[in-house]
Amino acid sequence: MTANSSITIRRARRDDVAIIVGMLADDPLGSARERIEAPLPQSYLTAFEKIEREANLQLVVAEDSEGIVVGCLQLCILPGLSSQGASRGLIEDVRVAKHCRSRGIGEQMVQWAVGQARAKGCILVELLTHSSRVDAQRFYERLGFKRSHVGMTVRF
Amino acid sequence: MTANSSITIRRARRDDVAIIVGMLADDPLGSARERIEAPLPQSYLTAFEKIEREANLQLVVAEDSEGIVVGCLQLCILPGLSSQGASRGLIEDVRVAKHCRSRGIGEQMVQWAVGQARAKGCILVELLTHSSRVDAQRFYERLGFKRSHVGMTVRF
Repeated sequence: MTANSSITIRRARRDDVAIIVGMLADDPLGSARERIEAPLPQSYLTAFEKIEREANLQLVVAEDSEGIVVGCLQLCILPGLSSQGASRGLIEDVRVAKHCRSRGIGEQMVQWAVGQARAKGCILVELLTHSSRVDAQRFYERLGFKRSHVGMTVRF
Repeated sequence: MTANSSITIRRARRDDVAIIVGMLADDPLGSARERIEAPLPQSYLTAFEKIEREANLQLVVAEDSEGIVVGCLQLCILPGLSSQGASRGLIEDVRVAKHCRSRGIGEQMVQWAVGQARAKGCILVELLTHSSRVDAQRFYERLGFKRSHVGMTVRF
């Protein structure tokens, strides 16, 4: 058992994009999807600018006590008419740097996101996790999430 | 086999909110969640205004050939860094008026949303459907969606 790491969660900046992409790529599903090159492909920076423009989207990073980025997460607050006009939170792209896992960083990030959603009046937080990510599903169950839905996708 | 109904899809207006809420309520899960009262509870109109303010959200309705609203759907375009900075489409709150089902209205609405997402450069469209909605899952499978993910939620 390793003690929980103390982290700080802050909004991602443009100069965090490369390290975030590194974390997205360092993953069984992500490794086939990302392009780690120097300089970073422009598509990532363009996407970062799009995220910045959406008022309901927050891409955040977790920094360790030395200011090193060790995790990331994206939270979207989705207003909607259902459930008496309740908003929902959607969590995406949760990653913790491989050498920093099992220290409670993912848990602190997800709990932060759930707290943010709650503070913004959401009645629930939802996420899709790939069926093959059995460990992730157990992780979210430990944090109070239920396997209530089927996540369906169509890819182009 | 009933012939497919011809529908028009357009952005929802404030005066559609009551009929949309009626469709959301006329549903095994929705009936316990909504409040159908006249006048409509203010929370729905406030939520409608929030939806209108988000540039990446579209709440649309399907009108039949007589201009009657027979369906609704919400589409969110979510930029993100993963998959080389690709955007994703998220479909929510799909409903077809009970007396208009099995006429291909839901199919046309979902295909419209998928087309919109594709036109906006998304690489996939995702949705969560409650595990109990077996018919909905079969419907989405017919439209090319895969049961690729587990949809997890935490409610407050």
